[in-house]
Amino acid sequence: MANHQLSAEELHYCWDNSITPRLEIESGDTVLFETQDASDGFVKPGLTIEEYSTRTSKGHPLTGPVFIKGAKPGDVLELEILNVNTANYGWTGFRPGAGLLPKDFSKPFFHIWDLKNSRTNGNWAEFMENIKIPLDPFCGVMGMALQEPGAFSTTPPRAVGGNMDIRQLHTGSKVLLPVQVEGGLFSIGDCHAAQGDGEVCVTAIETNGEVSIRFNLRRDKSIKEPQFWTTRSVNSQLEQKGYFATTSHSPDLFFASQQAVRYMIEHLVDTYRLTAEQAYILCSVVVDLKISQIVDGPNYTVSAFLPNAIFGN
Amino acid sequence: MANHQLSAEELHYCWDNSITPRLEIESGDTVLFETQDASDGFVKPGLTIEEYSTRTSKGHPLTGPVFIKGAKPGDVLELEILNVNTANYGWTGFRPGAGLLPKDFSKPFFHIWDLKNSRTNGNWAEFMENIKIPLDPFCGVMGMALQEPGAFSTTPPRAVGGNMDIRQLHTGSKVLLPVQVEGGLFSIGDCHAAQGDGEVCVTAIETNGEVSIRFNLRRDKSIKEPQFWTTRSVNSQLEQKGYFATTSHSPDLFFASQQAVRYMIEHLVDTYRLTAEQAYILCSVVVDLKISQIVDGPNYTVSAFLPNAIFGN
Repeated sequence: MANHQLSAEELHYCWDNSITPRLEIESGDTVLFETQDASDGFVKPGLTIEEYSTRTSKGHPLTGPVFIKGAKPGDVLELEILNVNTANYGWTGFRPGAGLLPKDFSKPFFHIWDLKNSRTNGNWAEFMENIKIPLDPFCGVMGMALQEPGAFSTTPPRAVGGNMDIRQLHTGSKVLLPVQVEGGLFSIGDCHAAQGDGEVCVTAIETNGEVSIRFNLRRDKSIKEPQFWTTRSVNSQLEQKGYFATTSHSPDLFFASQQAVRYMIEHLVDTYRLTAEQAYILCSVVVDLKISQIVDGPNYTVSAFLPNAIFGN
Repeated sequence: MANHQLSAEELHYCWDNSITPRLEIESGDTVLFETQDASDGFVKPGLTIEEYSTRTSKGHPLTGPVFIKGAKPGDVLELEILNVNTANYGWTGFRPGAGLLPKDFSKPFFHIWDLKNSRTNGNWAEFMENIKIPLDPFCGVMGMALQEPGAFSTTPPRAVGGNMDIRQLHTGSKVLLPVQVEGGLFSIGDCHAAQGDGEVCVTAIETNGEVSIRFNLRRDKSIKEPQFWTTRSVNSQLEQKGYFATTSHSPDLFFASQQAVRYMIEHLVDTYRLTAEQAYILCSVVVDLKISQIVDGPNYTVSAFLPNAIFGN
């Protein structure tokens, strides 16, 4: 049950089962990962919007791979998320063409979050006066190499995990991932200080991270896609004042999600005098998309939930 | 600010703006509605599975319409949900061809819930030994007549509301609906004692209901589809022991939802020795579908959340 550490000094930017493992561990070992933010250090305080708009991405910077001795295709790798820490700042942004509403925004926009002061503020980060977000960090990308040879984009999540962006994979959760190659070849990155279910503008509160994970091989399990357990409420801080929610009804869940988010942006602009860009970012970091019903065809219902607790505190 | 009452003795089964209102009220008035369950009284204790399989539906039985004086197309009707009570029993069932997994189940199945004993049991209803569900009643159908003439099915929800099946529209919530015809012509029905986000097997805990609503005309608002506020946690009883969750990643949110529910049914069958039919029903009344991310194309992530609190209590 050794403790290991992997720095963010040597990163990889795709899923490829031919990448040489940086670390070999036994089942039961713990690894402390340093992770680089999704922009690979490009977005930081002082960056101008002109500079932001020139950013190119070669993929999420990933820390790894870790070879888990004994892991064979068909096995299941269990991750115990022991702790997730963020850096002192984070960012949320979008460029035209990305996110859930690619055609609604014609200009790039980003926001820098002060995460350092949140530590003396009950772990809430200020978006602007009277709007604060509770932080609950997790890694957007946790996954393993694919069986297929070659380099695969880090953008879509797959059966082996990857860019799942599931905000409940925070400290205390246990994640199960199916192993496709010998040793599993686990990598991690894309730490988020906070995110809503949906991550609608395409980024969360993006930040560098330090993540401690215990790895256990589970040969008693067989799964086709990731599964997980949470042990604590993700919403206790958010639920206490209730929610405002928009809804949309459509045969297409994607379109219903778009409409519900559009209505929410209108609500935020009208009620709190945000710009549409600020509202889109706020939706991405704190609004949750729920499938309210998926059985009353031809129209299914998607609801977007905005926690009242973020206002006026 | 008068108090009115509408029995469930005279029901209608479609949306049609030519149906004569049963009641005219002023903005600010309160109405206590009796509602008939979705099966129109057909499913009840003692029903055999053979009888259940012969059930035909002419639509949700709806109590109404209520004409709200002064309501004009373009106005917004606000509903304050003051109280929702259920009957002493409820049912959950499905027949082949319905629900999120129409091809996975070849036989009809239903379950009768004892809701009477839940009142002396902290408001939890027993599914079977060691599995109990907290009740949180709401009406699946709340809506108004459409501008278009003719009779419309009660099954799909629309811009004016209807069969939204949003489980957070419980006691304490405020709902906004857009008015399309003079007087609004509000009707209500389809009380659910409990439901998960998704209602995946096509029914929740279906029951007769008594629902008290205050109606307010809101001319300061303009909305295209329903919106609402909640004032209390929907999950406080469920969140306390965390969740088990399955995930699926696909370009198609509907397919990802199907897969996540299939994995959950497998988990329930393997872990708790339920039949697949029992597991499907349990998913419908207590599992929540979340859109974890909708921006990492080509694969979007749907997660199905099962609350651990329902077991062993």
